Amino acid sequence: MTGTQTTPITDQPEHRYVLTLGCPDRLGIVARISSFLTEVGGWITEAAYHSDADTGWFFTRQAIRTDSVPYTADELRERFATEVADWLGPETEWKLTDSRDTKSIVLLVSKETHCLIDLLGRAHRGELPATISAVIGNHAELEDLATRFGIPFHHVPFARDRKSEAFAELARVVDGFDPDAVVLARFMQILPPKLCEAWAGRAINIHHSFLPSFVGARPYHQAFARGVKLIGATCHYVTADLDAGPIIEQDVIRVDHSDSVTDMVRQGRDIETLVLARGLRWHLEDRILVHGRRTVIFN
Amino acid sequence: MTGTQTTPITDQPEHRYVLTLGCPDRLGIVARISSFLTEVGGWITEAAYHSDADTGWFFTRQAIRTDSVPYTADELRERFATEVADWLGPETEWKLTDSRDTKSIVLLVSKETHCLIDLLGRAHRGELPATISAVIGNHAELEDLATRFGIPFHHVPFARDRKSEAFAELARVVDGFDPDAVVLARFMQILPPKLCEAWAGRAINIHHSFLPSFVGARPYHQAFARGVKLIGATCHYVTADLDAGPIIEQDVIRVDHSDSVTDMVRQGRDIETLVLARGLRWHLEDRILVHGRRTVIFN
Amino acid sequence: MTGTQTTPITDQPEHRYVLTLGCPDRLGIVARISSFLTEVGGWITEAAYHSDADTGWFFTRQAIRTDSVPYTADELRERFATEVADWLGPETEWKLTDSRDTKSIVLLVSKETHCLIDLLGRAHRGELPATISAVIGNHAELEDLATRFGIPFHHVPFARDRKSEAFAELARVVDGFDPDAVVLARFMQILPPKLCEAWAGRAINIHHSFLPSFVGARPYHQAFARGVKLIGATCHYVTADLDAGPIIEQDVIRVDHSDSVTDMVRQGRDIETLVLARGLRWHLEDRILVHGRRTVIFN
Amino acid sequence: MTGTQTTPITDQPEHRYVLTLGCPDRLGIVARISSFLTEVGGWITEAAYHSDADTGWFFTRQAIRTDSVPYTADELRERFATEVADWLGPETEWKLTDSRDTKSIVLLVSKETHCLIDLLGRAHRGELPATISAVIGNHAELEDLATRFGIPFHHVPFARDRKSEAFAELARVVDGFDPDAVVLARFMQILPPKLCEAWAGRAINIHHSFLPSFVGARPYHQAFARGVKLIGATCHYVTADLDAGPIIEQDVIRVDHSDSVTDMVRQGRDIETLVLARGLRWHLEDRILVHGRRTVIFN
Repeated sequence: MTGTQTTPITDQPEHRYVLTLGCPDRLGIVARISSFLTEVGGWITEAAYHSDADTGWFFTRQAIRTDSVPYTADELRERFATEVADWLGPETEWKLTDSRDTKSIVLLVSKETHCLIDLLGRAHRGELPATISAVIGNHAELEDLATRFGIPFHHVPFARDRKSEAFAELARVVDGFDPDAVVLARFMQILPPKLCEAWAGRAINIHHSFLPSFVGARPYHQAFARGVKLIGATCHYVTADLDAGPIIEQDVIRVDHSDSVTDMVRQGRDIETLVLARGLRWHLEDRILVHGRRTVIFN
Repeated sequence: MTGTQTTPITDQPEHRYVLTLGCPDRLGIVARISSFLTEVGGWITEAAYHSDADTGWFFTRQAIRTDSVPYTADELRERFATEVADWLGPETEWKLTDSRDTKSIVLLVSKETHCLIDLLGRAHRGELPATISAVIGNHAELEDLATRFGIPFHHVPFARDRKSEAFAELARVVDGFDPDAVVLARFMQILPPKLCEAWAGRAINIHHSFLPSFVGARPYHQAFARGVKLIGATCHYVTADLDAGPIIEQDVIRVDHSDSVTDMVRQGRDIETLVLARGLRWHLEDRILVHGRRTVIFN
Repeated sequence: MTGTQTTPITDQPEHRYVLTLGCPDRLGIVARISSFLTEVGGWITEAAYHSDADTGWFFTRQAIRTDSVPYTADELRERFATEVADWLGPETEWKLTDSRDTKSIVLLVSKETHCLIDLLGRAHRGELPATISAVIGNHAELEDLATRFGIPFHHVPFARDRKSEAFAELARVVDGFDPDAVVLARFMQILPPKLCEAWAGRAINIHHSFLPSFVGARPYHQAFARGVKLIGATCHYVTADLDAGPIIEQDVIRVDHSDSVTDMVRQGRDIETLVLARGLRWHLEDRILVHGRRTVIFN
Repeated sequence: MTGTQTTPITDQPEHRYVLTLGCPDRLGIVARISSFLTEVGGWITEAAYHSDADTGWFFTRQAIRTDSVPYTADELRERFATEVADWLGPETEWKLTDSRDTKSIVLLVSKETHCLIDLLGRAHRGELPATISAVIGNHAELEDLATRFGIPFHHVPFARDRKSEAFAELARVVDGFDPDAVVLARFMQILPPKLCEAWAGRAINIHHSFLPSFVGARPYHQAFARGVKLIGATCHYVTADLDAGPIIEQDVIRVDHSDSVTDMVRQGRDIETLVLARGLRWHLEDRILVHGRRTVIFN
């Protein structure tokens, strides 16, 4: 934050290409992929596979040291497309990312500070494999926090009778950054289907309950009324179905009869913060493959 | 199990009276109760209080060494009724139990063995503060297990078209033991409202999901389809609302994309077993006070 | 942080007196204390007791709404001393605090930001029942973070050959605030016995292992070498025995063979942060009673 | 247990070959192995890899459906040895098991019943991928439990002055079963170095603490004295260094000031039971590769 800290403190590993792929399962996929990677000289630092017996689908993630391969990302993509992906067939979904291409995050916030401060702190210490490009609030309260961490803040007010204009403005600002992740960090507006679609696979929400329990508003009040003994948080991709998108991560903490709703709200912040931070990290590291309503997470 | 083991291995503490009480909150309750206990010479080994701000209700549990009080349980009850409970008013609910009065459990089972074996094992090593009086199955498969641990088994078949007769027979057998706990240890029949009422506050169910998620049948299949990252189990008092009774205890374990429904069923058994055992123990130790749909648990 | 935010966002409950007390156990203590509180009209919102069978010691904590008692804290203390404490005997340790007396925290830091940002964030949203009076660093790196949250920063350099002068300077600065908590938030200096004594019961450390495993330096390296499957953090009162003071709180997270020391350090930050925040909160709410090497925590 | 239950209830998947391998890391290992498996037509149901940056070692585990490969296990082993293992070099350690070869477990017990009953129950419901061949006790108390589950019991008394004879007798009985796992299920004797060596990689112990804390005798007493807030259990391979062998699995549960040593012992049983059951399962499914003091666990 000071002039002397321009070199970020970081705990990121050496650079790598990350290949993720999902396709109908068949004999020989692993051999084909690994032979390809061997041919190009790739030093594999992480390799994970999953055969889903339920859907007959195959998933893999491979991390390869960039300095082991004498090709650019584009060259690798081209070779992989012709030498492997074509053979795997048209249903195959794959991508290859280069960790040297810094990813971009846009944070959507409202008035709650906990997820925002946590992510600003992680970015500040170089822990996130991405840059926070902007913070956008439907209220102006959190501008000060964002700007003190050197992150631009945009206020997009959501007047009750001008929501569609507000969402159009939100989309304009967000899309201006072409972000790899649009994080709803306790953003209190429900995205319209059009934005859910536009940001599919990139919009990540933190919901303050252990889904599918307590969908919708005031989940801690619902949890209190039901008398549950654990409360939780859920990080999920946003889809047009409210709080029903593919789940990335969940966790819980214990509560008891002595905890009021206020206590639950306070304690819940800690678990919301952690669950969102873990889910976002996995997303940025290309560890998540979505298939239908389920996620495969290679972590 | 052999003749040489008639003296049970036990880790039960010294004997005690346990007073539990719930009433509308008012000034001076603690003083009144504790002064009463001091007057009768009671050595309090555990004391817990809870004032519920939401409902304006007060709850307490007190454990008193029986050898510190020169009164029988009945004498104590009589004195407490006149000297304290009357003053607290007609809404007050209280009871005083004597740990020397051995409690009785009846287990209702179907074909699953895990909760049954676990509870038989706990009883065998003297860990449960109660006796298992009988195991009742709607199938006969588990008879062998029960009898090998020396526990009588009753088979009450539930033919599809004779369910009401079967429940009548079940009630007859259960009520013959006048049990302190009727444990549905993965019993696969839904109790009719009449039995829910008859056994209110004594019938304890283990449901194989983290309620209120996945009410009803095949919760692991539901959990798999939703793609949750934690699966759980819930121990609750049985009421006429299916899987909606007051929750006693819950816990969860982590699953991931590599876990099939079969894996979840297997891993879930461990958490069902633990959650039921904990909830049953608290029930038997008079640690649970029910108020509406919520439980106060002094553990 | 801006002029418009001078009214802190807060989730603190109504004000209360908190009485904590430890003494040799004897008949009638609860009655004596609760009768006293009834006489002064105290509305008890929380009451907790513990009789330690091992040591024969009795502990209690009572929270009383200040608006229910027509006495100042000093008047209450005087009455309690003569009407209760004298009767309990000279070994009794007790105190009565008033939540309207804002507590003060001093944070000792080095270069790690995670605990500092977390606590600054909690203070910023009014979650901590105290004010952070100052941040003191043996390095200057974190000055910028502290001052951006409006907290004064003091740099006390620890040159290798001038440590005793540095500790004297540290003591001078800390004692200038007469803080209720001196938090070693990943402070990398070992307090000398004299300061441990001066700040006994107020100096709180976060150690980055599940004590008593991995005392001393580089605990994550030790954990990696030993191949443990869970790593943890421990919040404890500082004593002259390194990492051996009374434990306030601990927690763990799961690691596996794929986690390098760097991964452990990163994941460990989250658990350090949470464990310290919980422990500090309980300390500030007078929920912790120390007896020998053990703590009684009424939470 | 009855004649009608001769067909075991089981949740085991289809049969599979399991290949596990560790060797110095080099380019092309995955391609070589997966090409080999493709050539023999192997349908891979699980594949896991780990490159250990710290030691430069590579590990993999592959599960292949037996019905997809037109070779016996011996034929496969022979081909793998010449076509892959030789190329990988002499330091390579590998094995290929066939899940149709039923594995054998021998349980060593003393007087504690919890791990024994739990494992008998798992075997009874077909959950363990192995047969319990025998239970061996240094006391006779548990004979009755074992035999009621139809498992032969051997009593090998350990008189204080005849320990070496007793260990010789123990080795004779155990080795008579040539078991795949020798499980010290709260066996209270320390194996001599000679037996540790003879059963290296097969002898599994459950220690009732979160190692490396509280090595040796009476760990719950040690935990109580230290005032820890979590107690744990550790499943590890037995080596000549007491409680210092490679850790397979660990877990913890929360305790507080109100828990006596007796309470910890009781609550600890549940975590010991679970941790041992999980570790044993992974061992039997060939999911564990040992390298030095660390384990790689593909689960």
